[in-house]
Amino acid sequence: MTQRIWNFSAGPAVLPESVLEEARENLLSLGSSGIGILEHSHRGKAFLAVYEETVALCREVGNIPDNYKILFLQGGASSQFFMIPMNLLPRDRTADYLVTGAWSEKALEEAVRFGGTHVACTSQDRNFSYIPATCSFSPNPAYVHYTSNNTIFGTQWAGMPPVPASTDTICDASSDIFSRPIDISRHAMVYAGAQKNLGPSGVTLVLMRDDMIERGSKDLPTMLQYRTHAKNDSMYNTPPTFAIYLVGLVLKWIKQSGGLTALGAVNQRKSAKLYAYLDQSRLFKGTAALDSRSQMNVTFVTGNAELDAKFCSAATKAGFDGLKGHRSVGGMRASLYNAFPEAGIDALIEFLRKFESENAH
Amino acid sequence: MTQRIWNFSAGPAVLPESVLEEARENLLSLGSSGIGILEHSHRGKAFLAVYEETVALCREVGNIPDNYKILFLQGGASSQFFMIPMNLLPRDRTADYLVTGAWSEKALEEAVRFGGTHVACTSQDRNFSYIPATCSFSPNPAYVHYTSNNTIFGTQWAGMPPVPASTDTICDASSDIFSRPIDISRHAMVYAGAQKNLGPSGVTLVLMRDDMIERGSKDLPTMLQYRTHAKNDSMYNTPPTFAIYLVGLVLKWIKQSGGLTALGAVNQRKSAKLYAYLDQSRLFKGTAALDSRSQMNVTFVTGNAELDAKFCSAATKAGFDGLKGHRSVGGMRASLYNAFPEAGIDALIEFLRKFESENAH
Repeated sequence: MTQRIWNFSAGPAVLPESVLEEARENLLSLGSSGIGILEHSHRGKAFLAVYEETVALCREVGNIPDNYKILFLQGGASSQFFMIPMNLLPRDRTADYLVTGAWSEKALEEAVRFGGTHVACTSQDRNFSYIPATCSFSPNPAYVHYTSNNTIFGTQWAGMPPVPASTDTICDASSDIFSRPIDISRHAMVYAGAQKNLGPSGVTLVLMRDDMIERGSKDLPTMLQYRTHAKNDSMYNTPPTFAIYLVGLVLKWIKQSGGLTALGAVNQRKSAKLYAYLDQSRLFKGTAALDSRSQMNVTFVTGNAELDAKFCSAATKAGFDGLKGHRSVGGMRASLYNAFPEAGIDALIEFLRKFESENAH
Repeated sequence: MTQRIWNFSAGPAVLPESVLEEARENLLSLGSSGIGILEHSHRGKAFLAVYEETVALCREVGNIPDNYKILFLQGGASSQFFMIPMNLLPRDRTADYLVTGAWSEKALEEAVRFGGTHVACTSQDRNFSYIPATCSFSPNPAYVHYTSNNTIFGTQWAGMPPVPASTDTICDASSDIFSRPIDISRHAMVYAGAQKNLGPSGVTLVLMRDDMIERGSKDLPTMLQYRTHAKNDSMYNTPPTFAIYLVGLVLKWIKQSGGLTALGAVNQRKSAKLYAYLDQSRLFKGTAALDSRSQMNVTFVTGNAELDAKFCSAATKAGFDGLKGHRSVGGMRASLYNAFPEAGIDALIEFLRKFESENAH
């Protein structure tokens, strides 16, 4: 077995080793079924048991109220960007968007095709390096949409944005879903591509309040109506069975790790360690505003693009993969999702120190 | 290792054992990368190499001309049912549908939302048990759509439908893609969910002529325009990386098995064996018209629903899984996709004989 290296990828990202090992054991035969997990019919007993366990674990781990459906869709968060306004934004209404990064911008761009939009806050003026302190909402928005964590710019809402209590709030939690407790009941909908904290790419978790599902227009393609998937337990058509299975294994691992409260504490500690190093470094510095820092994606620079490139190259050679910042911003980014081990952060800090001592001015 | 049983599932379906074994080896580390195949960034060198090899193998194995793009989309064939008319059927034009089963009916149902439709032929009068001999096309259809194989009813077009040469023809080949040679150049577009002949569920192969991609409206959500995926090598957003990897492994296996001509001969022989048994049986009989029989899905009945149920139950106990017919038609169905081994058909025929001798009238 090749030794595993430290994988700081922003997604698809590192998965718990125990999850991968269990999947490996079931690839040629799921349990004693004689049929591999990839090969089971989605209508068969074996996969239905996997599906039901996954849904039950999700409801338990995420503390999802009974009046919310748990859906497994395809097409990534990018497909939710248009499905949400297509279903929930009538032509004569306005939806409010909190624009804190590239992903919320993309969500907004898709919404303008369907109805009115209003930017309730934005941090574009300083390249999305902070989370705005205040928002200015429109009088009666169809919904408010925000992105809880910004993978590219390394910022994160510390908690709920200051949305009026009765407003239907929708959260794109793709890059911090289940990394800490989240109050689903304060949201009308929470969605997340699985490939960062929950599993592999190819499945999107959608948690949606029943009345929101029914609110959508019926004059839409069948596959684009949330009710289609809600009525059919995400099996109107063939679902991505293996991806759902893996999400189930990850949820089991989260439960065994003590659930979201325990995991949240670990994630807080993990990122705090790295930020503490950066704050005392004379070479590296974090790019996000102090009060807006992400626990998931730690972005940093040397202030010298050449030195950044030298660092990334040296890090790769030393077995630290995926530290290069997003192509749109440069610098470095360490993604520390749920499954990223704390030992990897200690190793990175040691490597950062060494590089700093060798490259100090 | 648990012994594998005979898996006649209609999809997700049996995969080649060598493919599963290779995937298993790469689950914790893709080659010597130290990062599992599920965990590699889609923007990283390791996955890009997988992607490029998969595309090249697809072009070679499928003999795909250079002016066709090879796309890996999500949402199944069911999403193509609406994406096709949304992109290619202007409100004032008509698209022709060849209605030979439940899937072509569903495709048609989605198209009526967008423009005119015309049923050029249908076999609904005899419960889709045959492929019509003639079609009556509209004067100038935007495109003609057909389903090459009907999973539920066990029928298959023996070759191209009699479409006028200059017509843009679109084929849903979900259940027989790459089971035999296919002349892509006679189609404007061929699409297929991967979960029968090509890999796992969660990825849809779309082969599309360049001018068709450009023909689509630009006034559509970004993710619903084919050009978005064509311009971005199917990576506008995070693609289903593991599913694409597995499709690549299956394509490699097809190539090693001699390509589509060799595989087509094997598939022909496999189904012919089973049909030959059914044709001489006094208990079982095939349900599809002789000239319309599918090489992929062999549907049969005893003529007695109770006896059908008894057979399915006995078969399951004897290690033959997935033989129950689709819930909408009943009876039995043996799906014999590419990866289904010939030895499994011999074993099934032996079991059918035994059941027949024990249950003869």
